[in-house]
Amino acid sequence: MFSFDKNEYLQRLQNVKAKMAERGLDVLLITDPANIAYISGYNSWSFYVHQMLVVMIDEEEPVWIGRFMDAISARKTCWLKHENIVGYSDNYVQSDVRHPMDFVAEELIKRGKGNKAIAVEMDNYYFTAQCFASLTKGLPNCKFTDAKGLVNWVRVIKSENEIALMERAARIMEKGMQDAINKCNVGVRECDLAAEIYRSFITGTEEFGGDYASIVPLMPSGENTGACHLTWTDRKYQEGETVVLELAGCHQRYHSPMARTIFLGTPTQKLADTAEITVEGLNKVLDFIKPGVTAEEVEAVWSDNLKKYGLFKESRIGYSTGLNYPPDWGEHTISVRPGDKTVLQPNMTLHIIPGMYFENYGVEISEAIRVTENGCKTLANFERKLFVK
Amino acid sequence: MFSFDKNEYLQRLQNVKAKMAERGLDVLLITDPANIAYISGYNSWSFYVHQMLVVMIDEEEPVWIGRFMDAISARKTCWLKHENIVGYSDNYVQSDVRHPMDFVAEELIKRGKGNKAIAVEMDNYYFTAQCFASLTKGLPNCKFTDAKGLVNWVRVIKSENEIALMERAARIMEKGMQDAINKCNVGVRECDLAAEIYRSFITGTEEFGGDYASIVPLMPSGENTGACHLTWTDRKYQEGETVVLELAGCHQRYHSPMARTIFLGTPTQKLADTAEITVEGLNKVLDFIKPGVTAEEVEAVWSDNLKKYGLFKESRIGYSTGLNYPPDWGEHTISVRPGDKTVLQPNMTLHIIPGMYFENYGVEISEAIRVTENGCKTLANFERKLFVK
Repeated sequence: MFSFDKNEYLQRLQNVKAKMAERGLDVLLITDPANIAYISGYNSWSFYVHQMLVVMIDEEEPVWIGRFMDAISARKTCWLKHENIVGYSDNYVQSDVRHPMDFVAEELIKRGKGNKAIAVEMDNYYFTAQCFASLTKGLPNCKFTDAKGLVNWVRVIKSENEIALMERAARIMEKGMQDAINKCNVGVRECDLAAEIYRSFITGTEEFGGDYASIVPLMPSGENTGACHLTWTDRKYQEGETVVLELAGCHQRYHSPMARTIFLGTPTQKLADTAEITVEGLNKVLDFIKPGVTAEEVEAVWSDNLKKYGLFKESRIGYSTGLNYPPDWGEHTISVRPGDKTVLQPNMTLHIIPGMYFENYGVEISEAIRVTENGCKTLANFERKLFVK
Repeated sequence: MFSFDKNEYLQRLQNVKAKMAERGLDVLLITDPANIAYISGYNSWSFYVHQMLVVMIDEEEPVWIGRFMDAISARKTCWLKHENIVGYSDNYVQSDVRHPMDFVAEELIKRGKGNKAIAVEMDNYYFTAQCFASLTKGLPNCKFTDAKGLVNWVRVIKSENEIALMERAARIMEKGMQDAINKCNVGVRECDLAAEIYRSFITGTEEFGGDYASIVPLMPSGENTGACHLTWTDRKYQEGETVVLELAGCHQRYHSPMARTIFLGTPTQKLADTAEITVEGLNKVLDFIKPGVTAEEVEAVWSDNLKKYGLFKESRIGYSTGLNYPPDWGEHTISVRPGDKTVLQPNMTLHIIPGMYFENYGVEISEAIRVTENGCKTLANFERKLFVK
């Protein structure tokens, strides 16, 4: 399903195993669907039941463990040998008496891993407190540590093939944002704008279709524009309202996010000024980004500019993005904020989103960028301004 | 944002507190976004960062705790007093040195709950292993138990207002499935069918718009129809292929799911037979369902019918559905399978989906139903057959 050949997966696996060796790990249990996809190619909406990719330092190939009916999807989408795809029976699903991690523990014991050093993704959405409780109970002789971010940090520098998918996502982003701005008018229901956004982003272009983004269209409007993670209602847009659109083009699970703000009517001076300050700061940030600078230095460019206007923004102004599954297109590695000392390198990809949120209004103008050899380049090419209609 | 008045929320809260009292709980920490919405009205795509609704047996109102920028959304969407909406600062987000549950623990201690009986949703997606580790570390004098299903089981019987939202979702389902069947043709790209599905389901009807379903369109085709949780690609449909569509109408987060199977050309006898057996069994199940029967008795009607044909289906044939957020529209309570002794009652709502999955083909024909006073009623009204085009 993905466009990568087996060698790219093997390289990724080798990079992960190198990190495991550094940390003295025998077994890595991967729950994050993006990390599973990154290594195995597995791609299915089955993460609502428990599943696991098991990487063993001394085994050539990982083992996929999931619900038996999803093993069919695993055989269709993964490069793994079919004997390395193991299904658990349906009576483990959402049961009060057994847990899929009981099954995983038994599988590990069978494979001689009952007394090994095991790492788990402690803060991943799909690794619940019960997963850990069941695993530690089933594997009392294993030593558990946190693998938080292990695979995510391997993913942080994209290959040329990954960049190519993100570039496609960016083409979809440009087209979709233009279609959205065209459709956004006084009297249009929010749901009808959302429908047009979905239509445009999922159709994609003639050459390549769109995939579902890991976050649905975020589109607060009017007095809700400060509430940045609201979706849509049946309400009609009114004259004099702001509409914020935070969207992402997606292709084969790779994202190119972008936000723009639209005003229906004549914007207030306050809103126009906020938008101008946002664009000014964003431009300075984009001019500054290059290999060798740190994430917190990037943030300082933004906040220094804000200070000129007596403003302050608490939240981070960006994060690593690329491959992901719901509920987030962020990669949970780099956060562009004070204290993040990550040194930027070529082919890191970030969503720079210095959203300005207040109790009853807000502005979002953002760019997804790729760090290049000597600077950065936005993935999408789209006018950076407050759109007034 | 939701259509419920405060009294309905207060009734729900009282029902939850009654369950807490039965179990001797002082504090219930709710992470499941559907459970949070059910009690507080909170509705925002913010569950990708940690958040919590705190129900205290001796406090009139719950307390919402989440990221400070999402506190704005909480003030917009919840019925709670604004002093009961508490935001944590942004440096807790995806940090290596602090966790939002450290903040939650401190809040609980401040409120005098540092030595109480606390229940947490151990197997909810958004209650990670790290959430539990941080909470138990921060609250060493609390006694923790599992609240798995506590609120979910309160939700299992729908109010008339909830049924009304699900009926709206069913109207959207009927229209959307018809639009999808119309669009599904040889030569159409899978992504273009997905785009049409999104457009139709999100636009909804003239009277009420669609909300995003908690699962994206599942639409395996051709040899992948046995891999039921696959989504779509850029591939074009071919003559002689089966297309499975598992979709849901959604309105204000309430779902009405349904699956249908389409054949492009003249179906093979095997496929036609499988579809006929599925419809026959589904019809028998729908005739059987009424208050007083158990979930496993419902399943037995299905499996007895299958036995006539020498067939067997391992996976459950249905589950409770209604209000939810990604990644699932199931409610994680009733599973229609052997061993589930839940006695059906009026206004329980189930998705009956006896999908037939084989290595290289599959059929899905399903119905969402409401248990009535003396039987059951499908939410949507849509022809129950294999669609041949």
